[in-house]
Parts: sequence; C-alpha cells; structure tokens
Amino acid sequence: AALERKLQAAERVFKDRDGWLKPHQRVAILRRLATLMEEKRDHLARQIAREGGKPLRDAIVETNRAIDGVLNAADELRNFGGREIPMGLSAAAENRWAFTTKEPIGVVAAISAFNHPLNLIVHQVAPAIAVGCPVIVKPASTTPLSCLDFVALVHEAGLPEPWCQSFIAANNELAQNLATDQRIAFMSFIGSARVGWSLHSKLAPGTRSALEHGGAAPAIVDRSADLDKIIEPIVKGAYYHAGQVCVSTQRIYVHRDIADSFTQKLIDRVEKLRTADPSLMETEVGPLILPREADRVRQWIDEAVDGGALLATGGDRLSETTVRPAVLLDPAIDARVSTQEVFGPVVAVYRYSDLDDAIARANALPTAFQSSIFAQDIDVALRAANRFDASAVMINDLTAFRTDWMPFAGRRESGYGTGGIGYTMRDMTQEKMIIMHRS
Amino acid sequence: AALERKLQAAERVFKDRDGWLKPHQRVAILRRLATLMEEKRDHLARQIAREGGKPLRDAIVETNRAIDGVLNAADELRNFGGREIPMGLSAAAENRWAFTTKEPIGVVAAISAFNHPLNLIVHQVAPAIAVGCPVIVKPASTTPLSCLDFVALVHEAGLPEPWCQSFIAANNELAQNLATDQRIAFMSFIGSARVGWSLHSKLAPGTRSALEHGGAAPAIVDRSADLDKIIEPIVKGAYYHAGQVCVSTQRIYVHRDIADSFTQKLIDRVEKLRTADPSLMETEVGPLILPREADRVRQWIDEAVDGGALLATGGDRLSETTVRPAVLLDPAIDARVSTQEVFGPVVAVYRYSDLDDAIARANALPTAFQSSIFAQDIDVALRAANRFDASAVMINDLTAFRTDWMPFAGRRESGYGTGGIGYTMRDMTQEKMIIMHRS
Amino acid sequence: AALERKLQAAERVFKDRDGWLKPHQRVAILRRLATLMEEKRDHLARQIAREGGKPLRDAIVETNRAIDGVLNAADELRNFGGREIPMGLSAAAENRWAFTTKEPIGVVAAISAFNHPLNLIVHQVAPAIAVGCPVIVKPASTTPLSCLDFVALVHEAGLPEPWCQSFIAANNELAQNLATDQRIAFMSFIGSARVGWSLHSKLAPGTRSALEHGGAAPAIVDRSADLDKIIEPIVKGAYYHAGQVCVSTQRIYVHRDIADSFTQKLIDRVEKLRTADPSLMETEVGPLILPREADRVRQWIDEAVDGGALLATGGDRLSETTVRPAVLLDPAIDARVSTQEVFGPVVAVYRYSDLDDAIARANALPTAFQSSIFAQDIDVALRAANRFDASAVMINDLTAFRTDWMPFAGRRESGYGTGGIGYTMRDMTQEKMIIMHRS
Amino acid sequence: AALERKLQAAERVFKDRDGWLKPHQRVAILRRLATLMEEKRDHLARQIAREGGKPLRDAIVETNRAIDGVLNAADELRNFGGREIPMGLSAAAENRWAFTTKEPIGVVAAISAFNHPLNLIVHQVAPAIAVGCPVIVKPASTTPLSCLDFVALVHEAGLPEPWCQSFIAANNELAQNLATDQRIAFMSFIGSARVGWSLHSKLAPGTRSALEHGGAAPAIVDRSADLDKIIEPIVKGAYYHAGQVCVSTQRIYVHRDIADSFTQKLIDRVEKLRTADPSLMETEVGPLILPREADRVRQWIDEAVDGGALLATGGDRLSETTVRPAVLLDPAIDARVSTQEVFGPVVAVYRYSDLDDAIARANALPTAFQSSIFAQDIDVALRAANRFDASAVMINDLTAFRTDWMPFAGRRESGYGTGGIGYTMRDMTQEKMIIMHRS
Repeated sequence: AALERKLQAAERVFKDRDGWLKPHQRVAILRRLATLMEEKRDHLARQIAREGGKPLRDAIVETNRAIDGVLNAADELRNFGGREIPMGLSAAAENRWAFTTKEPIGVVAAISAFNHPLNLIVHQVAPAIAVGCPVIVKPASTTPLSCLDFVALVHEAGLPEPWCQSFIAANNELAQNLATDQRIAFMSFIGSARVGWSLHSKLAPGTRSALEHGGAAPAIVDRSADLDKIIEPIVKGAYYHAGQVCVSTQRIYVHRDIADSFTQKLIDRVEKLRTADPSLMETEVGPLILPREADRVRQWIDEAVDGGALLATGGDRLSETTVRPAVLLDPAIDARVSTQEVFGPVVAVYRYSDLDDAIARANALPTAFQSSIFAQDIDVALRAANRFDASAVMINDLTAFRTDWMPFAGRRESGYGTGGIGYTMRDMTQEKMIIMHRS
Repeated sequence: AALERKLQAAERVFKDRDGWLKPHQRVAILRRLATLMEEKRDHLARQIAREGGKPLRDAIVETNRAIDGVLNAADELRNFGGREIPMGLSAAAENRWAFTTKEPIGVVAAISAFNHPLNLIVHQVAPAIAVGCPVIVKPASTTPLSCLDFVALVHEAGLPEPWCQSFIAANNELAQNLATDQRIAFMSFIGSARVGWSLHSKLAPGTRSALEHGGAAPAIVDRSADLDKIIEPIVKGAYYHAGQVCVSTQRIYVHRDIADSFTQKLIDRVEKLRTADPSLMETEVGPLILPREADRVRQWIDEAVDGGALLATGGDRLSETTVRPAVLLDPAIDARVSTQEVFGPVVAVYRYSDLDDAIARANALPTAFQSSIFAQDIDVALRAANRFDASAVMINDLTAFRTDWMPFAGRRESGYGTGGIGYTMRDMTQEKMIIMHRS
Repeated sequence: AALERKLQAAERVFKDRDGWLKPHQRVAILRRLATLMEEKRDHLARQIAREGGKPLRDAIVETNRAIDGVLNAADELRNFGGREIPMGLSAAAENRWAFTTKEPIGVVAAISAFNHPLNLIVHQVAPAIAVGCPVIVKPASTTPLSCLDFVALVHEAGLPEPWCQSFIAANNELAQNLATDQRIAFMSFIGSARVGWSLHSKLAPGTRSALEHGGAAPAIVDRSADLDKIIEPIVKGAYYHAGQVCVSTQRIYVHRDIADSFTQKLIDRVEKLRTADPSLMETEVGPLILPREADRVRQWIDEAVDGGALLATGGDRLSETTVRPAVLLDPAIDARVSTQEVFGPVVAVYRYSDLDDAIARANALPTAFQSSIFAQDIDVALRAANRFDASAVMINDLTAFRTDWMPFAGRRESGYGTGGIGYTMRDMTQEKMIIMHRS
Repeated sequence: AALERKLQAAERVFKDRDGWLKPHQRVAILRRLATLMEEKRDHLARQIAREGGKPLRDAIVETNRAIDGVLNAADELRNFGGREIPMGLSAAAENRWAFTTKEPIGVVAAISAFNHPLNLIVHQVAPAIAVGCPVIVKPASTTPLSCLDFVALVHEAGLPEPWCQSFIAANNELAQNLATDQRIAFMSFIGSARVGWSLHSKLAPGTRSALEHGGAAPAIVDRSADLDKIIEPIVKGAYYHAGQVCVSTQRIYVHRDIADSFTQKLIDRVEKLRTADPSLMETEVGPLILPREADRVRQWIDEAVDGGALLATGGDRLSETTVRPAVLLDPAIDARVSTQEVFGPVVAVYRYSDLDDAIARANALPTAFQSSIFAQDIDVALRAANRFDASAVMINDLTAFRTDWMPFAGRRESGYGTGGIGYTMRDMTQEKMIIMHRS
C-alpha cells in the first residue's frame, strides 16, 4: 500500500508535463544539495562507517565523492543536448531539418547496495533529479540510514517529495514489486548478478534497466613490472573495504620469473594492514557486512585449501564479521575463489609463463568488468590492454580504480548498461527527434 | 543441430582475436557488397515484390535504401571511435590518461520481419559486419529469399561464412533457441511486440537486445494546416505497403473546424489509390502478407463499425490477401483500430476541438513511436512537437518518414534500443576504457 | 616596462609544466570565485551601472550571468576531453591506438569592451583559468573598475597572480604591444571591427585569435506575425543598454500589409521606455558611454533624415550622453544607419513586399551576426532561418538573445572564432594526439 | 583577368542559394570521382613520380591515399551535423529549442605544395566539394599536372566547373591576389611558413585561413628502445621522399648509453637506401624538387660540418637534384640543420643523458608539429608524450606517420587550423544556430 502510494505519486508528477521542473531549477536544487551535504560531511561519513562497517578514512572519501557526484549531475546539464541529424543525404530526405532533444524517460526504480551506502544512492538518484525523472529508491536493508538522510537533504534542497521517494522494503518480494511494476520506465539495480538478472527478466514490457554487478577482477603482473611501485595499488585494489567492491582485485596472475619475490612482498604488505574497528581513523580493513558473509568467505577459503591452495597469510576470524586479509596461492582453477566473486578480503595468486595464456585465464569467466596489467614494458601493457575482455583495463593501476564520471559497465553477466553520473543520465533519458519539413 | 553448428562456427571465429578482420578489410567488403547489390538491383527489387507483395516501385526504393545502408555502415567506421575520459578532476585521478575504444560485442542473433525483406536484413547484418560481430540472421518465414540472396552476396563480397550465416527456422521454437542461447551476446529483433518482449524476458543472463516493434502512429491535423499540401503525406504514411509498416499513420486527429473538408479530400485521394498486382510499376497498394492477416483486418473493421464507426470508403476484399484502402470515421476509443496496431490499409479519423486534448489522446496507448503534426501555425507545431510522447515528431510530414541513418526507436512497448545503421553499430559494440597511470 | 614584466611572469609560469595547476584545483578556484562574486553581487552590479551607464536592472542581470559564466567554465571541464582517432582504416595504420587530449595553448591576451564590463571579462578570463592558460586582460579604458575588482576576486579565490593579470593601457599603442607580442599564443578581442581586424593582421607568426565585433542586426516581420507578442522582443532587442550591444536590432523589415499597424505599435511602446539615470531600478534606457558617441548618433540620425528618412519618434538629446530612443522610417539604403553599426538607441524600419527580397536586403552588408524572423507561419519562419546569412537566427525572438554557453560568432567582418564559455575554452586549447604503436 | 573571371564565377554560384548542390548530389559526385581515379590510378601515380620526383612506390601509395581521401570526404557527410544547444539553463532561456546546422563558408582559395602533388590537392579540394564551397586551387608551379588532371576528373564526375577551378599562377603576385581578394571566405595554404604567415597577415577582413607548414621534427631514442625494431621507422621518417615532408624526422636525440650502437645501425641502414631514378619501382630515395634545393641542402651540410658536426654518411651529390641520404652527428645547437627545416635527406643525431633535457631541446624551436619517442619503458614513453610540445606524439612510430583522416595541425609557427579531411570540412563550414521560441 505504501509502495502503491509512492508509485502513484511518482507517476502523477511525471504525467503532468506542465509541472516538470526546468533545467535551471534542477541545477539549483542539485547545487544546494551539494552545499547541504558539505555541511553534514562529518555526520554522513560517520554514518557510513557505522552502518556499513567501512573504515572511516574510506567513508570520508566516499562522502566527498558523493558530493562531487551531485555537482557532476548538475555540470552535465550544461551540454546535455541532442544532435542535428543531417538530412539531404538522399533525395527523399531533402528540405528538412532534424535534431534530437532529450526527455526524461519516466519513473525510475533504484535498488541499491550496501557497500557504498551513500555514493551508490547518489549515482542512482542525482542523475534522475538532473534529467527530471521521479525516482523511488530502495537502499540495502543493511544500510538504510545513509539513504534516508540523503533523501531528507534532497527535499531540504527544494525537490518536492514525489520526485524522490525512499522505499524501505520489508522483504524481497516488495522490492520485486517495485521493480516489475508496469509504471516503472527504468530500473537501476546495483547488487548481486543472480538477483539482478532475475529481476531483469521479470520487468514489465517497456521497462528499461541497468544492472551493476561484480566479478572476480584479474590483475596480471608481468616480469617487467616494477615491484616496488605496484604492491600498493594491488593491496588497495584487493582489500579496500575488505574486498567488498564489485571491481576488487581477486585473481592475480604473476609471471613465474618474479612470482616468489612478488608474493613475498605482497604478503609482507598484507600483514601490515590495520584490520580493526572501522570508526577509527587509522583502520585500513574493517568487517564484512554480515556474519553470514564472513562464514561464507571462511568456507570458500577452506574449500580452496582443501583443493590444494596454500593459505599464505590471513583468513582467520578476528570477530564475528571480521576476516583477516588473506592471500591464497595457486587455488584450483575451479575453486569458488577462482570462479565466483568473493566479496571479501581474499586474493588468489597464480603463476604463469606465457602472457597470452594468462590473459586467456583472466578472460575465462562469464563475468567481466575491470582488470589490470602491471608492466613496465609498453608492448606487454598494450597487448594486455588489447586482449583483456574487460570494460576497463588499468595499466599500472588498481582494478578498483574508479572516478564517478567515467563509464563503469560490467560486461556479459557483470552488468547491463553503463554507470557513471553522465552515463546514467543518458540511460534515464530518451531522445526525441524533431523533423521539420521546409516547404 | 544445424543451429548448433552455426552457433559453434560463430563463436569460434569470435573467440580467435587474431583472426578478426581489420576495419579496412570490413570497409572493403561492405563497399564490394554495395557494388554487387547495385549489379543485382533489378533482381533484388523484383524478388521483394514477389515474395513480400510490396509494390514494385516501393521495392525499388527499398533496394536503393538497402544499398545505401551497406555504404552507410562503412562510412560510419571513419569516425567510429571512443573518447578521452578526462582525468585530474579529483586528486585521486591525477596523472592518468584514459580513453575509450570500441570492441565488437560478440555473436549477434538477428530475427527479422517480412515487411522490408531486404532492407531490414541490411539494418541488422551490415552493422554487425562493420563492427566485426559474427551474425546469424533469421528472416521472416514468409520472405526468406531476399535474405538468402543477400547473404550469398555478402560471402561473394569476401566475408568468410562463419561471420554471416542465415538460419531458416522451421518453427518458432528454433528461433527462440537461437535468441536465448547463452552464446548470443546481442539479439536484434524486428517484429511483433508480443513475441519480442517475450524473447527479451527469456534471454540468457548477459545477452543484450534491441527490439523494433510497432504502434498505432497518430497524426494531428490542426485547423491551420494547409489541406492541399498535407493529403499526400498522410495518404503515403497510411497506405504505403498497405499499412504494413511499424510507423504507419493509423490514427488521425482533425480539428473539427476543418474536419469535414479534410475528410472529404482524404477520401477522394484514397479512392484513387491504385490497388493491384504488386509486380506492376503503377501499383500503389498491394496485398497483405497472408490471407489470415486480411481476415484479421476485415474483422477489426467490422468490429469498429459495429461499435459505431462509419466506414467512409474501402475495406472490402479484392482478393484473398488484398483489402481496399479503408477510412473509418470516429471509431470507439476502445476499438481495436483505436488501440492496437492494424498493420493494414486502414486509418481512423477522429475530431477534436482542443489541441492538448488531441495530444493526450494520441499519447494514451502503451505504444509510442513516430507521430506527426500538420499545422502552418508555428506555435501549434512546436507545442505538439514538445508534448507528443514519441521518439520522432514530424512537422508537416508523414509519420512513416524514415531515413536509414536517423535514430529509430520505439518508446515503451514499441521497442528497445535504437535502430538506424550507426546506432545499431553502437549497440553491437562495447566500449573498453584504457587507463594509463603516468608515474 | 609594466607590460614586459607581466608578459615575462605569464610566460614563466606557462613554461614550467610542473607548476601547472591541476584540473581539480582550477575547478575549485572557479567555484570559490563564483561564491565570492555572489557575496559581492550588489557591489558588482552597482559598479557596472556607475562606470558603464547600464541601467541597474540590466547590470544585475549581467552580474548574475557573469557568476554563471564562471561556473560554466568549471562545468565544461567535466567533459573537456579529446577523442579516439580510429586507426586500422588503412593497412598502413593498423595496430595502433590514437587519442587526442587537450592542452592549454599558452599566454592569452584579452582585450575587452565597455558594454558588459564584467561579463565580457568573464568570457575572456574564466575560460583561460579553466583550461590553464595565463591571461593578461586589458579592460576598456572607460570601464576598468569592474575588471580590476574581478581580477582581485580571482586572486582571492586562490589563483596565483601570474596566471591572471590586468593591464590598464594608457594608450592604444600599449594595447597593440600586448596583442602583437610574439609570446602571446592567443588574442581574444572584443570591440570594433576596424581595430580588431587591424590587430589581427599585425599578430606575430604563430599567434591565434578570436574577434568579436558587431553588425547591424536585421529583423524581418512577416505579415503572419503576431503583433501583440513581438513588440516586446523587438523593443528589448533594439534598445537594451541603449543599443550598445553587438547584436542589437538595428534594421527592421516589415511586410507592407502590416507595416502601418506595426510601426504605430512600435512607436507607442518606444515612447513609453523609461530613459533616465541608470542607477535607478526602473530605468530601461540609460546614457551612451561617451559624449562623442552621442554626438555621432545624433549626426547619423540627421544624415538619415536629410537623406529622406522620417524620424518617427525620439532622437533628441536628454543629456550630454543620453539620446532618446529613436525610430527612423525608410532611411536610404546607403545611409550610415542602414549600413554601419549605430551602437545607439536607433532602429530603422523598412517596408518590403517579397520575403526573399527582404532577406536579400538583410544579408547585403559585409557584417553578419544574429538575426530574427517574426512569423506565425512556419514555412516563412523556416525559409528565413534557412536563407539568412547569420550565425544565429531567432524565430520570434530578439536578435540580441544570448545565453553565455551558446556559440556566439560573428560571420565575415563581424568576427572570427566562436565565443561562448565552452567554445572559448576550445579556442584556448590545442589538441595533442598520442599514437601508440602496438607491436 | 583570368583570375577575376574565376573569382566572379565562383562567387556567382555561391550567391545563388537555390543552385547549391544537395548533399546527396555531392556524395554521388565524390563517389564517381573516386571510381574515375581508380581507373586512372596507374597514370596518376606515374605522373606524380614524373613531375614531382617521388619514387614510384611512394607515388602509388599517395594515389591510393588520394582516392581514399575523396571517399573520406563523402563518408564524413553522413554525420556532418550540428548539435542541440540546451536551453532552459537560465530562466531567461526557457521555452526554446536551439540547434546548430552547418553551412558552407563561401569561396575557398587553395594554394598547394609540390611534395604530394595529388594528395594535398585532394585535402584542399575534396572537403570543399563535400561541404558545398566553390574552390579555386593553385598547384605548386613545379607540379601542376597532377592538379590539372584531378580537376578534369572532378568535372567528369559531374561537378559544374565554377565549383572547382584550377588557377596556374604565373608569379607570386597573382597567387597573392587570389588569396587576399575580399571575395575569398577561406584560404587554405600548404607550403613554407614564411609565405604562409605573410599571406595570412594580408588577408581581407573577414577571410578565414588554414596554414600547413613544416618544422624540424624531433625523435627521442630512450635507452630502453628496442634498436632492432626502431631503425626502420626512423629511416622511413627521415628519408621518405628525400625528406621533403613537413613532418620528416630531422633531429634525433639518443640516450648516450646506446648512442654508439644506435648510430652504427642507423648508418648501416641509411647506406643501403636505394637512391635512384624515381620511376623505378625499387627506388627508395629520389631527387629533390629543384637544383637550387639540392644546392641549399649541400650548403647547410657544409655549414654544419664547419661548425663541428661529423658527416657520418652521405651528403654527396648524385645528380643535379639528388643528394645521397646524410647523417650528421652532433651539429651545433644553432646550426641551420638544428633550427630550420631542411626539407632534404638529412638527419642530425644528438646525444643526451637526461630525458627532460632532451625533451626541452626538442621543444626549443618556434616550430612544433609531430614528434616521436622510441622507448620500451612505458613511463618514459608516457612522460615524453606528456611533455613534448607537439600536435602529435608517436610512441615507437615515425614522426611522419599520417593517416588522412586524423587531425594534422602544426603548432605555433608550424601552422594554423587543423588539417585532415573531416577537420578541413569543419574549417570550410560555419555553424548556423536556429533558436525557436515556443510560446
């Protein structure tokens, strides 16, 4: 009933074209929103740490990114136009002018994830506000508070409530009811591939969607790599937010000539990671989101070890939800840590002797998202960049590198559509072409 | 088994990156293909008329458009690149260069329709060739010959067979097997909304798709319209290929002040349409594709008349498949001719007194594609262009206007993704971002 | 000597690539600058009115636009990247990736005009800051204070002084020394065509430039025009800032069928314009910038009357610098008011009977910038839009319409290059292409 | 008188807007032109060799590129449109639609160079045809025949003569008369910087221009470079067409650690270059264009040797116009071979020990165009790419690399505007913005 009221309110404001907010009003709201968020920066960061278990230093980064994302959405409107379609390229199309313009697509359902409880909400809501779509946003059940606070600030910034409503779903069925309602023009989903693709297949005819799932991001370490420079980005890519990031480095392929020294340096650094209470400023690795996730991660590690992997460091339980950062050496090719997304503080290290072979192994999963090549040799770097099946290849950078304005798009089972503030704005609009016959 | 062999062949060539054709090779193949098609222009046109019942003069136009579409796909490659993603907009993103490049998405399944048996095939196959995707194309069961001839020319132009295979499905189940195979990266479907959305919901996780369905395209005739100029585009938009076009003009809203004179002029012109054997050069309207479609159209007309409509002209059966062009006046708002796609030579004319009310009625269906406003008054024209829920608004032009390079995208239930040669090429590619960390 | 020091300082910071500000630093400076300007909004507006004689209500608008222009420059950086250049379109270009990126062009000399003493400075300086060019800005000698205040705020916002320096030239020779110095990479000039083109021809080899001059903007009033709606935009276009705008409406061509009623309505409205002290909020028309300009305008009016024109209203001197808004009927085709830029509160009204003839007369001058067609008939509107020799055609809008982000580019003698915040940023950058050979 | 007739004819067809060719007509003409050129491919190549002294194998390449350039111009039209300018970003700009469209700029004067007697003409003429500008083309006085043959084919392809006229100037004054005529809207000049910038400063007010000059292109060879791979591109870059290319490799900076081995390999390869009659298929290096150029090159070599350089190989005169490929070691920093464009078969090799120092020396001239870094180390490659003052940086590729569709733009004194087929088309058009006020 609550959901129905929200859907009706959203649909009503969208259907009344005379009531649409003008671009300059939406820009003003977004800029005020950014200012309000800046004023609450400290509160927002602490809340992220508290409800999501993200180390405070990372929560501060997330908050700053969220603020920038709101400004980003306003910025994009400056050039958010269509294009002229040339006429006259056939005799039948002479004497016309045609151009496209962008219109909001309709009511957006946004279903979000826990691992960036503020910034993911911004990625789903700010574009909707910018382009003029009413949005109903459902946060992860584990991290609703950041979303609720953000939505309150949105209203305080001047957006009338029907244009942005939060929806706390008591169960999965309600979330599905939201997504699959035929009034939804666009569903934005961030979370597990299983749930996402299932919802995708159940959408009403006419509903568009974007999915952002994860993978088991690979990194290749060539023998030309500069070991002293690359350990930091690899460790950051693997253990940031305890590995609970969809583009976390999970599979590292190291050339055998340098495998031993690389592995030793990696272990040394991993063992120095400060794994502790996320509310402390110095903490580098915090807990997982739920005890059952820690159980699962432990189980996958055990399974890998049973299958022949060497647990070189970590993996033990520091609390109900905290697992010490783990390095697994040479797990079996069909182990779950080799094939599925761990979403925990675990990396698997494999040796290789032939670059193309390593790339083929990196590409072998049905998921494909971001990947890294670490190499000083430019031919190796460019060859890997060319042959990786990935939406982004980092050269000497972490797989988890992301700026919020860049395209962010899981390939194949890893996602659908393209994330990134401006890209999502395009997903939430539809082009209208105006053709004027000049007689 | 035949399908499995085709799928395996397609997947095999795509997986072997070293065997991919270079852009200049693909351009050369497409240009040779256009030359071969020009040499067979007459044969191709006659075949379209023969197997599809399209009047020969229109079949010639279709053939010319198909040739241009092949060149179009080659042209697009000249500027088919990615873009630089600016880095340095945050301190964390400094000292990097990033750019995107385009890669083929994988194996394409193309399921086509009968009404443009050559040009639709070109719209689905030429982009795949241009961007380097293997494609398996299934023509409509009623019009397979144009497709088979085209695919033979593709091979003659130099494209190795696994890159372009035709697939004649003996039944719907086989077509579905093609579309939903997990090796398919992209499904392009042109046909009925019912089948399209159903297939869409059954795709394997990871498969992308584009759907091109139809609607019941509306045209509004304002009292400022110049009646002497607009009858021709309206009649062309309504009766071209006996209305078997997804953007055929089906619903005409006329301002009451001019309704009588407009209707009389319309009827006069419709009654002059030469409805005859499609192989004759002077024929303007030919048969429907199957007897059962003529049955259906007749039934819908009868239903409308029973519901209160006046059949002002036409509607009688000239042969098993030929229905004389019909004009219905004021059918009920819930009649099938008012709500569903007729795909036959029938228009419904309604009166209105308020522009916004007419637009609201035009926008009221779950389908939305192209629409027209006929008006000399620029304020009326721009108001309608602004408020139509349509992917394209024609000002003083037929709803069925299309050039093959423009975006062509059904909204809501009318489609998914964007057609048009260059647009489909974008749908069949995925962007890869290369990020280079400069240390 | 002062100039030499400024040039040296600017060149020095530009040559030291390690000292260049990062994009995020430039964005932060521009956003702080906008905030500082908002805080001084009232002061800035009053200063514009005081030193430039612009009516206060218009000075407030100018200030708001200037603030938005600063934000605009920051916004643009979000997407200010190059593009991928496709390789592989010839065998010789295979196995490469190429993309372009943007670099600042070097030291900018900006020479500005009096009529928008703040906003023009923003148009020349904010883009330079955004893209990372050192800029030396010379305001008009009549309105230096707005520029000096703005430059002070730029420094207060955090930009080191060598990156933005003002230069008050005691005489024209010094301004020319600045523009023609071989260390200048780009000269931006806003002012008279005579001076601009002369400087342009004296630039050092290698220096690029943009010129923004004026014209004698034409408006055509078709017989289908809605007289009740169009008088306001015509009067605003003609008399805004006493006509001291480079796209002021100067020549009005009216269809003879409506010429009398149009002229009467125009005169009635012009006579109601509140011409008074610019510091009063209700003033609509203020003084000209210098007594000698008022002398000149008077002289041109007299000359026109001597040549056969009828002075229908206004034209008398209200003060040393204030001329009452004037309407001249049918001046000779070779009168100065018909051929040169008046830059004063004077419009000339001509009759026509054939649209194409009116367009030909509108297009007949060596200057060409913005123009207007007033018509309800869409065919007339589109025909004029097509045939006007103009960088912008307004349909039912004033010739002086401008938003600061749109392209603004005098054609032929009216200018060189393209104004508008983002466009100027492109002018102040040069593309660098990186081609990577993959072996 | 001949010039005046040509100018009048060009102006006349441009002024008559009703007589402009439609885009599809221009596309058809360009495609027919490409076909005609293919039929004459052999003749065109031999003529290039005969009148320009270019080795036949290179003349064949030039002919193929010229044909592709003509198709390129046609291709570009497919997407040659403007863009929507967003309105509504301020309250004053609400309720409008605005888009830009492209119009031809007017009469083009093209002044060309001898070193690519066919392809440069194509670069200047095909864009003009594509966008609809009348063009008057003046070939180099040494190589007029390729131009005349091409213009004849243009007419044979269907372009009416006034749209493309050749002009053989008996003296420099006549060429200047063409360029500086006030009816010229755009001057395209390819040739020496001295002449180009001088003409640029003499253009009539309102005339736009593009200049393509040369430089003394630098290449840096890092100690990580793979010597076995890089000798070929360096030799090709330096001695292609006897160095008579504006982006010829002229200055090579080699890291001292590898300087000796690099130099030896370079000399070995240079001494194997087949320097002979250009009409022979195996010739790699042919004559210079005029005896006086060979005199000049000899003189510069002698001067360098007198100033302390070592002439390691070549430099002797094989005929009146043929100079054997020369390698100079360590010429003085102020020698003409170190500072001015040689335009002959001469490279200078310098040693360096610090990368940034080498880059600074490479950047020290007032000319700046393309440059190369040869390095396997990716950090070195990217650092050089970042810091080179160049319009294009090749990583492990020759400075003279060019595809005809890429941007090609001398910086500072090396040029003005951007070459490349599509880029020149943009230079030869002007945008018109249509703003429609929706009331």
